[in-house]
Amino acid sequence: MYSVYSGPSSFLQSCSGQQRSSFFMNEDIRADLLQRNSVALSISDPALFPDLPTEVDHYHELVPLETHTLNHAVKSNTYGLITSTYKASNSRTGMRYCLKRIHGYRVTSAKCMSMVELWRKVQQCHLVTLREAFTTKAFGDHSIVFAYDYYPGAETLMTKYLASTAPHLDPFSSDPSAPRPYTMQKNRMLQQQAGKGCVLPESLLWSYIIELCSALRSVHSAGLAVRALDPSKVLITSRGRLRLCGGGIFDVLTYDSSSSNITALLPHYQQEDLLALGKLILALACNSLLALQRDNVSTSMDIINKNYSSDLRNLVMYLLSTTQGSRSKNIQEVMPMIGARFFSQLEAATLHADYLEDQLARELDNGRLFRLLGKLGTVVDRPELNLDSTWSETGDRYLLKLFRDYMLHPCTDDGRPWVDLAHIVACLNRLDTASHDKICLTSRDQQNVLVVSYAELHHCLETSFNELQQAALAPSSAHLLLGSSSNNEQ
Amino acid sequence: MYSVYSGPSSFLQSCSGQQRSSFFMNEDIRADLLQRNSVALSISDPALFPDLPTEVDHYHELVPLETHTLNHAVKSNTYGLITSTYKASNSRTGMRYCLKRIHGYRVTSAKCMSMVELWRKVQQCHLVTLREAFTTKAFGDHSIVFAYDYYPGAETLMTKYLASTAPHLDPFSSDPSAPRPYTMQKNRMLQQQAGKGCVLPESLLWSYIIELCSALRSVHSAGLAVRALDPSKVLITSRGRLRLCGGGIFDVLTYDSSSSNITALLPHYQQEDLLALGKLILALACNSLLALQRDNVSTSMDIINKNYSSDLRNLVMYLLSTTQGSRSKNIQEVMPMIGARFFSQLEAATLHADYLEDQLARELDNGRLFRLLGKLGTVVDRPELNLDSTWSETGDRYLLKLFRDYMLHPCTDDGRPWVDLAHIVACLNRLDTASHDKICLTSRDQQNVLVVSYAELHHCLETSFNELQQAALAPSSAHLLLGSSSNNEQ
Repeated sequence: MYSVYSGPSSFLQSCSGQQRSSFFMNEDIRADLLQRNSVALSISDPALFPDLPTEVDHYHELVPLETHTLNHAVKSNTYGLITSTYKASNSRTGMRYCLKRIHGYRVTSAKCMSMVELWRKVQQCHLVTLREAFTTKAFGDHSIVFAYDYYPGAETLMTKYLASTAPHLDPFSSDPSAPRPYTMQKNRMLQQQAGKGCVLPESLLWSYIIELCSALRSVHSAGLAVRALDPSKVLITSRGRLRLCGGGIFDVLTYDSSSSNITALLPHYQQEDLLALGKLILALACNSLLALQRDNVSTSMDIINKNYSSDLRNLVMYLLSTTQGSRSKNIQEVMPMIGARFFSQLEAATLHADYLEDQLARELDNGRLFRLLGKLGTVVDRPELNLDSTWSETGDRYLLKLFRDYMLHPCTDDGRPWVDLAHIVACLNRLDTASHDKICLTSRDQQNVLVVSYAELHHCLETSFNELQQAALAPSSAHLLLGSSSNNEQ
Repeated sequence: MYSVYSGPSSFLQSCSGQQRSSFFMNEDIRADLLQRNSVALSISDPALFPDLPTEVDHYHELVPLETHTLNHAVKSNTYGLITSTYKASNSRTGMRYCLKRIHGYRVTSAKCMSMVELWRKVQQCHLVTLREAFTTKAFGDHSIVFAYDYYPGAETLMTKYLASTAPHLDPFSSDPSAPRPYTMQKNRMLQQQAGKGCVLPESLLWSYIIELCSALRSVHSAGLAVRALDPSKVLITSRGRLRLCGGGIFDVLTYDSSSSNITALLPHYQQEDLLALGKLILALACNSLLALQRDNVSTSMDIINKNYSSDLRNLVMYLLSTTQGSRSKNIQEVMPMIGARFFSQLEAATLHADYLEDQLARELDNGRLFRLLGKLGTVVDRPELNLDSTWSETGDRYLLKLFRDYMLHPCTDDGRPWVDLAHIVACLNRLDTASHDKICLTSRDQQNVLVVSYAELHHCLETSFNELQQAALAPSSAHLLLGSSSNNEQ
């Protein structure tokens, strides 16, 4: 038995907020989903990118994702090689992927692809999964392409927080007109920043820390290291979710066929990941990459001291500390510093799932109702079927037509139209469930009054729609029905 | 610009599983939501419950939730008083709540309601929030009623795991035909159980532990204690989510007006909560409440040793240990024992949110399309408007009617009907966005061919629907249009 959405539960009162309508999903989430959907479906104008191949291996519909690489090749700071990033559709699955192309690179040993296999297996909610890698000459050079999951509309920590920082928010920005020494200037900047509350909220920073630690933990326990934990390699996808990207590229590019070497270097790379995590947190906390410069470290730690808790300072200190002798750092050791914030993060994730589930409940019936209304529409008032121009005016279809009038064109007693979506929904629900409720259908000339149950109408619709589908599927049926012996079956 | 759902992202491949259609939500989640919706909307037959008041304070539509209390009053094991549980609708908000009624109870001091105020503020995703409490004579006695958030279709840990345990799964069940001593019998049962893998998976148990700890932490840090952490007071709502219920009842029933007393007893009650948590975990791990009996404790620990990790054993031991002198236990101390399982729990919650969001994206346009198709239907083929029976056959409406034919009744070149939901969706999307794409509409007699843009059709629909709404809103407009001077405005 279908019934309408019962309304949001009382436990969702706080997160539902002001809702214009509780029968359709929240407009913000809708706009966000639509935006991502349209970005995912976007295609590029071939005239703008004449050099772009139409097909690269089994990918097509390439769209460049980094505008700065359009006009001139730029060497990646991370890899020291020219790179480009494209959105592309997989010709086999139709799914979209993000292709990272390393220009002018020749693979020396096919064995390096074994690293890709290892990375493929690390699937985690804070990691952009590497799906495959292949070499190609489609771009007119020797390129190697890494195919990752694609997140429409994602930006990086770099572009969101560190690249576009306005100078007055950046305590390390060097103002050429300012008198040396910079320190005073810096400190003033710092005061301004702290006073204005321009720093990231500590709770957001901890949320990011937990997400990044979660990703690092998965990568490290898979016997791998990220090796490129850089603000430009951390995506922010929907709702502030972080995802590490670029996993495996370094491993392939620097592949050394002596496998013992890889195993030997892994602990070193993992330590470097933790150091990189510390730097990343420091840069985010200070709102500037300059915080990482050797000269600025004490000012940076001052900023953290003034704006954040000692837990955060201790975490950064731990991650930045150099490994002492045999005592190596470990991602698990970070957990006590995160402490009860795990509970907060979990509660936020749980509440968000509750919220999404309620949104889904609001939309629960709309797909079904849309299809049903469409189905009814294909039958009612159809000009002809199987050359019978009275098809929709006779038999079952006649009843359905009267039902359509009852549902869509009701009037009040004084002859005014009565426009009510709830009435339409109620009629369709009863029709769909073949309810035994009866309604009184009146012909337009008021001469005929028929009392039918929704169950009968349901049967009428099923029969008529089946007839329609039969006619659609069997090319010659129309002619056979009319006794034609034509053989134009196709 | 509206576009259709771009299909699931590649990162959701694993959790989407086998989907019959990617344009509508998964059937399981749909069935689950529908089920909960219909339970929420269920009403009881007044004839079955003649004693049930139609109104209790500002609640109505009471539905008994515990069938065993229907025929005879049962004293609650927890509270030692007769209790009943009802679903009810709040007359002010229309929302549904769960009412817990304590029969025949007279409040001695109105001050006890201050405890309700404290509990109202504890809102947490693993706690059933107490919304209010009031005394009432509506049931024909002096009752006190506690109103909680309502979770349709929820069951308790007791009913799910501990009450319905089949005897052969319960290592402590006493078989009267078995020879004494029971120990051998018990051990044999235990072996069978472990061999058959009848115990709860450890990962599920940890998930429950994290959820319960999360709830306890919130309650304790609000300066309260649960005092009824019993399998019958832990709800399992959708998707295995646990929620503590009954918070505040003990505090009100045992309220002592000397407030110093409450503060003094709080640490004791909080220690008891931790002990109760240990017992709850032990009972779940052993699949039986008998595990908690003093005689059975060593067998219970054996079961845990054989089936679960040492972490779990240590956690249970810690929680069950008696407080030694001044050293009291603390919910925070449980965190290191949970350890990296926090990450797993977070990842699962995050993935689930991703999944729900994708489901929502599938349903994104159905509500809009349904409304649009309904809107078109109210205009096209309407018998009359303002006494003009040709309204729907003229002007804008004529174009819309031809568009309806184009959209819903297309035919192939050889005259067969062409039934295609995608065509309907594409037409509606272009109509909704007032696309400048043009289509060729042909009258049924093939005599007229009109080339119109979707933008024009969009305008036609807006104008016609507005006209309809005007007529619906202004009672006398029809008469005015016809020059009538009747004054039957109402």
